[in-house]
Amino acid sequence: MADPSETRTVARFPFDGTMPNWGKRADRHPLLAFVDSCLRGIGQILFADNPVSGLLILLGLFVTSPWLGVATLLGLVSATASALLLRLDRSRLRAGLYGYNGALVGGALATFLVPEWSPGIILYIIGAAAVSTLLMLAVSLVLVDHLHLPPLTLPFNLVTIPCLLATFATSHIQHGPLLARHMAEPINPALRESANAGTVSLASALVEALFRGIGQIVFADHVLSGVLILLGVLVWSRIAGLFALLGSMLGLLVGLTLGGDGFSEYHGLWGYNAMVSAEALAGVFIVYTWRTALYGLVCAAATTVLYAGLAVWSGAYGIPALTLPFCLSTLVFLVGAHATNLFRPVPLSHVTSPEEHLRLPQ
Amino acid sequence: MADPSETRTVARFPFDGTMPNWGKRADRHPLLAFVDSCLRGIGQILFADNPVSGLLILLGLFVTSPWLGVATLLGLVSATASALLLRLDRSRLRAGLYGYNGALVGGALATFLVPEWSPGIILYIIGAAAVSTLLMLAVSLVLVDHLHLPPLTLPFNLVTIPCLLATFATSHIQHGPLLARHMAEPINPALRESANAGTVSLASALVEALFRGIGQIVFADHVLSGVLILLGVLVWSRIAGLFALLGSMLGLLVGLTLGGDGFSEYHGLWGYNAMVSAEALAGVFIVYTWRTALYGLVCAAATTVLYAGLAVWSGAYGIPALTLPFCLSTLVFLVGAHATNLFRPVPLSHVTSPEEHLRLPQ
Amino acid sequence: MADPSETRTVARFPFDGTMPNWGKRADRHPLLAFVDSCLRGIGQILFADNPVSGLLILLGLFVTSPWLGVATLLGLVSATASALLLRLDRSRLRAGLYGYNGALVGGALATFLVPEWSPGIILYIIGAAAVSTLLMLAVSLVLVDHLHLPPLTLPFNLVTIPCLLATFATSHIQHGPLLARHMAEPINPALRESANAGTVSLASALVEALFRGIGQIVFADHVLSGVLILLGVLVWSRIAGLFALLGSMLGLLVGLTLGGDGFSEYHGLWGYNAMVSAEALAGVFIVYTWRTALYGLVCAAATTVLYAGLAVWSGAYGIPALTLPFCLSTLVFLVGAHATNLFRPVPLSHVTSPEEHLRLPQ
Repeated sequence: MADPSETRTVARFPFDGTMPNWGKRADRHPLLAFVDSCLRGIGQILFADNPVSGLLILLGLFVTSPWLGVATLLGLVSATASALLLRLDRSRLRAGLYGYNGALVGGALATFLVPEWSPGIILYIIGAAAVSTLLMLAVSLVLVDHLHLPPLTLPFNLVTIPCLLATFATSHIQHGPLLARHMAEPINPALRESANAGTVSLASALVEALFRGIGQIVFADHVLSGVLILLGVLVWSRIAGLFALLGSMLGLLVGLTLGGDGFSEYHGLWGYNAMVSAEALAGVFIVYTWRTALYGLVCAAATTVLYAGLAVWSGAYGIPALTLPFCLSTLVFLVGAHATNLFRPVPLSHVTSPEEHLRLPQ
Repeated sequence: MADPSETRTVARFPFDGTMPNWGKRADRHPLLAFVDSCLRGIGQILFADNPVSGLLILLGLFVTSPWLGVATLLGLVSATASALLLRLDRSRLRAGLYGYNGALVGGALATFLVPEWSPGIILYIIGAAAVSTLLMLAVSLVLVDHLHLPPLTLPFNLVTIPCLLATFATSHIQHGPLLARHMAEPINPALRESANAGTVSLASALVEALFRGIGQIVFADHVLSGVLILLGVLVWSRIAGLFALLGSMLGLLVGLTLGGDGFSEYHGLWGYNAMVSAEALAGVFIVYTWRTALYGLVCAAATTVLYAGLAVWSGAYGIPALTLPFCLSTLVFLVGAHATNLFRPVPLSHVTSPEEHLRLPQ
Repeated sequence: MADPSETRTVARFPFDGTMPNWGKRADRHPLLAFVDSCLRGIGQILFADNPVSGLLILLGLFVTSPWLGVATLLGLVSATASALLLRLDRSRLRAGLYGYNGALVGGALATFLVPEWSPGIILYIIGAAAVSTLLMLAVSLVLVDHLHLPPLTLPFNLVTIPCLLATFATSHIQHGPLLARHMAEPINPALRESANAGTVSLASALVEALFRGIGQIVFADHVLSGVLILLGVLVWSRIAGLFALLGSMLGLLVGLTLGGDGFSEYHGLWGYNAMVSAEALAGVFIVYTWRTALYGLVCAAATTVLYAGLAVWSGAYGIPALTLPFCLSTLVFLVGAHATNLFRPVPLSHVTSPEEHLRLPQ
């Protein structure tokens, strides 16, 4: 507990791991505890149970667009407040586990519905995010309680998909041009031509795609957002940060190899699912080893193929694949990790950060 | 048990609750027991384990169309007889739990397939309704046995969806004009213009929509059917009747607020899912309190948004959303009710009527 | 165990049942054990835990096309090797249970993607088949461990569907003309006209459809392949062989009765799901009796209606229904068999062959 060597390790990076000391301090003031829970909720989108990670990711959202930032906050606060109202498990609430799905609901609805700042959409976000807390309970009942698997961002997907679909049947809540039904269009795999100006070099297009891929996990289609989000992951865990980067890179690489659409590759759509898959397996839900690293990267590649498949499926309805590819692929690879003795899965109640998992007793 | 005060309460309304005394009397004659089980099966579509409710709902069906009534009876008898043949749990059979899904299968196929009274469709209904009993077992295995959640009308949906889809691939079983693929048509939210004559007042269009919404739970698109069905619920439970009405009303209101299609609103399509959601939560599966009431109405509103989303999804295939919105939304809200200590869920084996649940020991 | 009468029964047919003596001999050499596991994996597509069945089915594949045969082998070896690499349960691996899904993945991708022998598709098959082993674990976690139901070929479907869909979003992995989006085309139920030459008699068209229906379970659209596959089933079990034939026949008959598309009927597409449904219920997962026989044929008929429904659903995306109809229908009928006392289900760990199940103690 108070092992000085451990304290020293933690001290090497400021704001490292889950910041338990700060968490205990915040607990003393209800409002501060709520704010801390919310910030951890934003961090949890990338598994970072850390308020500073949350702050950096939030900054990344506002860099892309203030409306995206505010909408994400609205969803986050609605989902967390709903958990408070329903008197749900306090330690899970404090870890941000009742916030991250709501935050993503807010970001998704802000991205795909129009117009920005509309009171109708604000209410829609608040309601949908509140329901995301119920879906967190429902998904956890099946996955956590019966199968010992994490709920990931499945609740977000299960709430957002019908909310987006509904806009095709409502005239007062409307979707923007990003939602449109795709039926077997020809594919243009040229990445560079798809870049904004068309004059940017291939190398810089690839770097942009890489960081946009990180940003897209929270709908932030902006290089600087990607950088800030990566920083947010890094303050919590260096291993996770590295695999976030490698995951986004691998997703892009698989997309280019398969000959995916250059426009969507440039905007990071082939990267964000692979990124969180790599992170999840290489350290977050399995204790990190070189084997875990390899397994995580294989999962990231599989996630990217699944992304292509699910994007075709959801595109036929006019909606995006969201993070369903990540959820489904990661769950399957986690079941595999539980079934073999090659890996050491982290019990769900012990998940903190990849570095701390290395210190878990065998 | 034989508490005279309780007898007095029950006596206030004729045919109140689950009519256990009549049930025991019917048990003495196999044929009467079968008829009683079947009538309770019709009642169970709206949770009413009560043969008089079943009779009134049946009357409502025949008011809309004799073919709808006969087809519902065919499905009901086929599903109940299948349960008898498979020697399934007698108390569940007697409560009508192996009948209601088959009844709905019959009603749905009668509504969406053509021509009426065709021998092919009659055989199709009998077969599909028999399979609904197997699906009741499959859904119950997962929901009841493992998750302590009611199967609701999921078995009906799971049988009917492929049976309707199949008609797009068969030339001897054909679907009527109600099944047609919708791809992003413009929405006309004007309710009054959509009404039959076009000359009816807005107020009367709203009242019609409200009662058609009640009727639509059994595919009875007729105001008088809605009134008879509401009476059927009321003889069994005043609380359930009130929330059926409030649910249908709220569904319509949310539809109008979202700017849904006026034609479908007028014909009650935005109401029937919300109606059974409100009923299910406010008294049937959770002991009634003012908090339960509020929670049930929030669920009814969420169900309506889900209805819009699922109708877009299923409409792309040319089929209706049936009662999937009610099933999914209600299950999620029930999980929430189990996870919080704000509500008192009724154990599934004790579900009788909202009024009787109020007398359950703490 | 060493009962001479039993040995005599087994001796009546060469290569009968699961060939346990041969299996033990093969265990002595790692390579021979691997080959034996792989051959049993091919047999398991039709439940035949028997290497000679595997050989005959493989022969049937090469008769249709060498590319189909090689691709199936690629998937088979990749999936089985993945199980070896992950050190999964040896007895399941030896029974071919980690191979059959991968074999089907290989066959499906070879059938629907172009061009043949392309290195990209070979890599795609190897990767997808490896993932099928993880999906076998995931599906088994839910179905086998929690619900005591067999995984059937669900893992194959869950891997192949996204892999086929993805080809609509990739320009370097391409699908052939068999994948195309169908939206409510008119149906031509004339079977004879749909036959190859158009001059063949109705009787011979029906016989062809019957055997093509058997072949289609492994994508082998060829009469001789169907005959070889049936022989493969027969060496392992006469009961299973009979019901494979009856199942394919019933599927075709239901298709003709419903007025399905004659072209797809002629090519066996209405038969292969019904075939394995009949086999699964009449002897493989339930001890054979005349009641089981009837139940299996009812399931085969229901599977065929489900096939029509799911083919419409998947056809809207341009992909085939694969064996989803068989999986879903068979699981539901197995749940029914567990719930009634009319049948004697075989515990999953005791599944060998219908004939041996007859000798299981009560």
